[in-house]
Amino acid sequence: MATLKEVGERALVENIRGFLKPRSKTTRIGPGDDAAVIKGGSDGSIVISTDVLTKERHFPEGMTYEQFGWSAAAVSFSDIASMGARPLGFVSAITLPEDTDESQLYDIVSGIDQCCELCGTDIVGGDTKFGSMSVAGTAFGTMDGRSPLTRSGAKVGDIVAVTGTLGNAAAGFYAIENGIEADDQIFALMVPVPRVEDGMNLSKSGVVHSCMDLSDGLANAMHAVCAASHVGMEVEWEFLPVEDDTRKVLEQCGKDVKHTVMEWGGDYELMFTFDRNDIKKLYDLEVPFSIIGVVTEGDTPYLSDGNEKTEVGDGVY
Amino acid sequence: MATLKEVGERALVENIRGFLKPRSKTTRIGPGDDAAVIKGGSDGSIVISTDVLTKERHFPEGMTYEQFGWSAAAVSFSDIASMGARPLGFVSAITLPEDTDESQLYDIVSGIDQCCELCGTDIVGGDTKFGSMSVAGTAFGTMDGRSPLTRSGAKVGDIVAVTGTLGNAAAGFYAIENGIEADDQIFALMVPVPRVEDGMNLSKSGVVHSCMDLSDGLANAMHAVCAASHVGMEVEWEFLPVEDDTRKVLEQCGKDVKHTVMEWGGDYELMFTFDRNDIKKLYDLEVPFSIIGVVTEGDTPYLSDGNEKTEVGDGVY
Repeated sequence: MATLKEVGERALVENIRGFLKPRSKTTRIGPGDDAAVIKGGSDGSIVISTDVLTKERHFPEGMTYEQFGWSAAAVSFSDIASMGARPLGFVSAITLPEDTDESQLYDIVSGIDQCCELCGTDIVGGDTKFGSMSVAGTAFGTMDGRSPLTRSGAKVGDIVAVTGTLGNAAAGFYAIENGIEADDQIFALMVPVPRVEDGMNLSKSGVVHSCMDLSDGLANAMHAVCAASHVGMEVEWEFLPVEDDTRKVLEQCGKDVKHTVMEWGGDYELMFTFDRNDIKKLYDLEVPFSIIGVVTEGDTPYLSDGNEKTEVGDGVY
Repeated sequence: MATLKEVGERALVENIRGFLKPRSKTTRIGPGDDAAVIKGGSDGSIVISTDVLTKERHFPEGMTYEQFGWSAAAVSFSDIASMGARPLGFVSAITLPEDTDESQLYDIVSGIDQCCELCGTDIVGGDTKFGSMSVAGTAFGTMDGRSPLTRSGAKVGDIVAVTGTLGNAAAGFYAIENGIEADDQIFALMVPVPRVEDGMNLSKSGVVHSCMDLSDGLANAMHAVCAASHVGMEVEWEFLPVEDDTRKVLEQCGKDVKHTVMEWGGDYELMFTFDRNDIKKLYDLEVPFSIIGVVTEGDTPYLSDGNEKTEVGDGVY
């Protein structure tokens, strides 16, 4: 048998899905989308997502414990947002070394609570044990009778759009690494904002075919939606919303802007697709978004830049 | 500021509760009971509980990875059971060292899945990250229109009862420590069974006033119910269901049987209270239980043994 590192995270998840056989009739969407959807809400559906952050891996230099807690909540609320659900609550299971200063625990919980407040909900329960520092959070919500926005609904001809701007978290990370001043980008890295309101508005519009968050990057999201929807996708580099300041920071750090924006996660924006005839309904929503491309036939996501067209995912653009 | 160890787990939880101000109108029961209850289920209530187990602390010698996964699920399902809820699903957030053999991850997930099967439900989602080995699980369920069984409903004059038998997990633990053969007790420690069916049946009876699981021991449960219900409690040592074999194992290990049965957790039975006039309704349920005492006036839990009556919780009986 191989080690987890040798197998790789994606293959492990695939292998687990291979041997888990859903048996419950209440599971509408099980493992494989941003969040699970279970029959049983007041409208027939509870949406639920869990994520764990560890201090070793998810605590960049300069992060506060409050920001660590906030981030741990934000990642799960972002998954709730990408389904278009309304958050109902959050539970956290925290492990900390027993010699941790108690104020660090309170700061983590306070950070979680502030993110819950942004999402219009509460910490409703939790568990704390001694161990290496990690926060496992579970957010849950309701569809309020609407259909969940999944990765699998994209249709050929759809417009592809994203909320907000891209590459900020990556620029923040590299700015810290290189000692470059970049307050906005570093803040974007430390305090990611789950697009809960945007997700609900997209869902309420009734015209969005597919949606996924960009927590693992744009390239990853394009791949996932193409695979789940059995479609191709073509995104235009010039259309990607990357702020000049973010571009400058990445260049100062000697990073390839295109590669970084495509491959880096941490922005927590939403990528979604919709029928081009419904575009007016989307403009009527209070969701700022940028059109970045189209859904095509086939099964491959591409990035176009002028005359160049590159397959997304091999890391070379 | 003090370290977590110096402050102690109970005080930390109290402190956190002190600064968390519930703001959401959907939270019916927040932190402080076995599980949280949120408005929003098909009947108005989703029940949710989260727990984290670490390999350092919750992996006795001889435990398999499957049993570790099973246990991680069982602890949260036990909290769902103690509210009388029907399980709807489970999500797990697992951290593992990157040099872990992949089979260990699959065994953990398989163990979780088997416990989900026992509880009539599925793993509906999860997250896996590199880190120290831990499993944070979140179980959720629905009340199907019934009222949740809480810690706060015990009434003076109620009968106090427990499901199953006590002290098995403790005996299993000490048997391993002392190299004593005790298959049943060791199995009870390694594969705790959440009393999901019993919890639902107790809830359906409509006559149970309070309920709590014994994951942290009988003494702890008596204290918690007395504090939440503003009552006292008197339990009779001779009434406690401790099997002869379990008693023998504890004695062989040089352990004080009374102290161990009162203070040790891990049995995952349910302690519940009900009006003595309703006892026939409880005998009609298919829930094996033992009457162990009565709810009294006051605010103190006591253990009686013949003429001796000792306050529960100072560890001396």
